[in-house]
Amino acid sequence: MQKIYLLTPGPTPIPPNILLKMAEPIIHHRSPQYEEVFQEVRENLLYLFQTKNEVLVLASSGTGAMEGSVASIFSRGDRVLVVNGGKFGQRWEQICSTYGLEVISLDVTWGEAVDPSLIEKHLKNDGSIRGVFTQATETSTGVVHPIKEIAEIVKNYEQTLMVVDAITGIGVFDVPMDQWNLDVVVTGSQKALMLPPGLAMASVSDKAWQFAKNSDLPKYYFNFSKELASAKKNQNSYTPAVSLIIGLREALRMIKEEGLNNLFARHERLASAARAGVLALGLPLFAKSPSNALTAVKLPQEIDGKKLVKLLRDKYGITIAGGQDHLKGKIIRIAHLGYITDFDLIIALSGLGMALGDMGYSVNLGEGVKAATEVLNGQ
Amino acid sequence: MQKIYLLTPGPTPIPPNILLKMAEPIIHHRSPQYEEVFQEVRENLLYLFQTKNEVLVLASSGTGAMEGSVASIFSRGDRVLVVNGGKFGQRWEQICSTYGLEVISLDVTWGEAVDPSLIEKHLKNDGSIRGVFTQATETSTGVVHPIKEIAEIVKNYEQTLMVVDAITGIGVFDVPMDQWNLDVVVTGSQKALMLPPGLAMASVSDKAWQFAKNSDLPKYYFNFSKELASAKKNQNSYTPAVSLIIGLREALRMIKEEGLNNLFARHERLASAARAGVLALGLPLFAKSPSNALTAVKLPQEIDGKKLVKLLRDKYGITIAGGQDHLKGKIIRIAHLGYITDFDLIIALSGLGMALGDMGYSVNLGEGVKAATEVLNGQ
Repeated sequence: MQKIYLLTPGPTPIPPNILLKMAEPIIHHRSPQYEEVFQEVRENLLYLFQTKNEVLVLASSGTGAMEGSVASIFSRGDRVLVVNGGKFGQRWEQICSTYGLEVISLDVTWGEAVDPSLIEKHLKNDGSIRGVFTQATETSTGVVHPIKEIAEIVKNYEQTLMVVDAITGIGVFDVPMDQWNLDVVVTGSQKALMLPPGLAMASVSDKAWQFAKNSDLPKYYFNFSKELASAKKNQNSYTPAVSLIIGLREALRMIKEEGLNNLFARHERLASAARAGVLALGLPLFAKSPSNALTAVKLPQEIDGKKLVKLLRDKYGITIAGGQDHLKGKIIRIAHLGYITDFDLIIALSGLGMALGDMGYSVNLGEGVKAATEVLNGQ
Repeated sequence: MQKIYLLTPGPTPIPPNILLKMAEPIIHHRSPQYEEVFQEVRENLLYLFQTKNEVLVLASSGTGAMEGSVASIFSRGDRVLVVNGGKFGQRWEQICSTYGLEVISLDVTWGEAVDPSLIEKHLKNDGSIRGVFTQATETSTGVVHPIKEIAEIVKNYEQTLMVVDAITGIGVFDVPMDQWNLDVVVTGSQKALMLPPGLAMASVSDKAWQFAKNSDLPKYYFNFSKELASAKKNQNSYTPAVSLIIGLREALRMIKEEGLNNLFARHERLASAARAGVLALGLPLFAKSPSNALTAVKLPQEIDGKKLVKLLRDKYGITIAGGQDHLKGKIIRIAHLGYITDFDLIIALSGLGMALGDMGYSVNLGEGVKAATEVLNGQ
C-alpha cells in the first residue's frame, strides 16, 4: 500500500471536488448551459488576471498560448528582446525564431533573475525593439523575475510590448496585469489553477491589440483576434475542452472565495517554509531569487538527482521534479503551488531527508520538518 | 426532474467508466506510470487507425491536428486541391490559405459527396497539385465522401498527398489508413473515441514524412516531426493533457475489446435505423450520401430548426445539432456515433416526433420509433 503525493510544478494535484465536477456527464459547447459556464469563467478570469482585458481560453497546453502571443501579435522581422535564463526562456526564443522574428537573447545565468537595468540599456540603445519576453517564474530554475520593475521600464516605450509567460505565476503571487501595464500575460491550467493540463489562457492589452492588427504571421488555431470575437459571444472558435472548462469554473470559484491576497499569502508562507526546511537539511537553494511557486534545491556533488527523484517516487510515493537540460541530476524542484498544502510540504521534506539518508548522505533527518513546521506555525 | 440525452456529433456522451478513470488523482507526465499509459495508447492507436505509422497525440481540438497537417508537411506556394462541401471543407481551405498555400477549391453542393472523377481530372490536368484535402464525413452536412475511391486515384501521383480529416470517421466506419494509401489521417477525442474534447490525433505516411522534410512553414506547437521524435520515447513535446490520455487508454481498450468490425457494424446498424426512423416520420434525409456517424434531416419549410432544437433540449432533455451557416434552421443533425446506443436513438426519434407535434407539424408520432425498432431488431 502506498499513498501518492504529487509536488511537481505542473501538473499539480487536483482537488476532489473539481475531479468530480469534471466527471459529470458532458454538455454540448453550443448550448445555453455551456455559455453560462463560460461566461462565469470569463468573469472570474478577469479577477484572477487583475485585468479589464478579455482572458482568452485555448484548448492546448501553455505553450500554445505562448505561440499565439507571438503569431497573433507580432510580425515577421520584428526585433524582440528575450530574457533567457532557463528552459522556458529558451522556449520564447524558439517560438520567436520559428516565426521569423529577430531575437536578441538576454542570457541570464540559470538560477539567477534578470537585471532590469540590462533591459533598459537594450531599449535605450535600440529603438526598434518591439517586445520584451520573459517568464514570471522560470520554472526550470525556480527563479522569479522582477516583472514589475521590467514593466515599469517597458511601459515608457510606446512601440514595445511587455510579454509575460506567467504560467507559473498567475494565482501564486501578485501579477496585476493592468496595474503593472503588462501587455500579454499567459497561463496554463495545470499550475495554480489546480486542473489537469489542457487549457491555456492569455490576456492582451489594448496596446498589444494594436500590434495584432498589423500582425502578418500565419495563425489559425492560435488566432487571438478570432478567439476574442468568439469569447465576446461566450463561445470558442474551435471545440473547447468542455470538461476542463467545467473544472476551471470550479477552480476559479475556489480561488475567488479564498481571495487573491489570501492566496498569495498562503503561497508565500508555504514557500518560506520550504526554503527554511531545505536549508535546515543542510542543502543550498539553487535559485538566487526564489519563486513562491517552487523551491529548487542544489544537490551535493555526491548525490545523483535522478536517483533521488526515482527513490522518492518509488519508495516513498513522493513525486517531485528533477533538473532539466544541463541541470539534470544536479537539482531537484519541490513545488508548492495550487492544491499543495502545509502537510504535503512536510511530507516532502520528511521524505527528502529519509531518501538522502538511504543514499548514504548524512543529514539531520528531523531538522527539515522541524524548521518548516516552525515557519508554518508563524515562529 | 429531467434526464439529459446527448446526440450531437461532438462532444458525444462519455462512458461512466471513462469518466471515473479520468477522475482519479493525476499523475506526472514525466514518470514511468505515464509512459506505460502512453505506450499502450500509442499501440492501440495503431490498431484504431489501421496503420504502421505512428499516431501523434496533441493537446488541442481536432482543428489543431488539421493545422499541423498543413504546417508540418506542406510548403509555401504548394498548390492543393480542397474538397469543399461544407463547413469543414472550408476549414481546410482557410488553414491552407492562412499558410500561403495555393488553394484550388473543388466546390461540392452542401449535402452531396464529391465525385472522385473530378479529382482525377484536376490531377491529370495539373501536375503541380501537391495535396488533395477532404473529410471522411463532412460533419456539417452528414455526408460521407468516397475516401477509398479518391485515394486510389491520388496514390498514382507520386508528388501528391491524400490528406483526410477523419475526425468524424475513425472508429465509426472503415478508414484503413495503410491499405487505402492515405497519407495524413486526423481525428479528435470527442467523437467515436467517446472522450471530452481536448485531444487531436494525426498519423502520417512515409510519403508524407518525405514532404515534411522540406516543409518551410512555421510551426511550433503543431510540429509533427518534433512530436514524432517525442512519441518514440513515449513522451510528448509539450505537457500532454494527462487526464484525457488516461481516458483515451480506457476508450481504446473498449474499442479493441469490441473489435473494429463489430464497431463498424454497430454504427452501420444504428445509422440505418436512424434513417429509417426519420423517413418514417415523413422527413427527407439531407445528405445524398449519408455517413454512419450522423443523420442530417431536411426540415419542412414551416419548421424553424432552431426552435426545434431548443424545444427538444429544453422540454425533452434531448440535445441534437442544428444546421450551420446557410443551413441554420433548415436541417437538424442527429448523431449516432461513439457511446450512443439503440435506445438513445429511439429516445431521439420519439422526442423528435413529439416536438414536431408541439410545433403543430403533423407527423405520425409512432412511425419513427416503429421503423427504427424494426431495423434495430434486424427486420
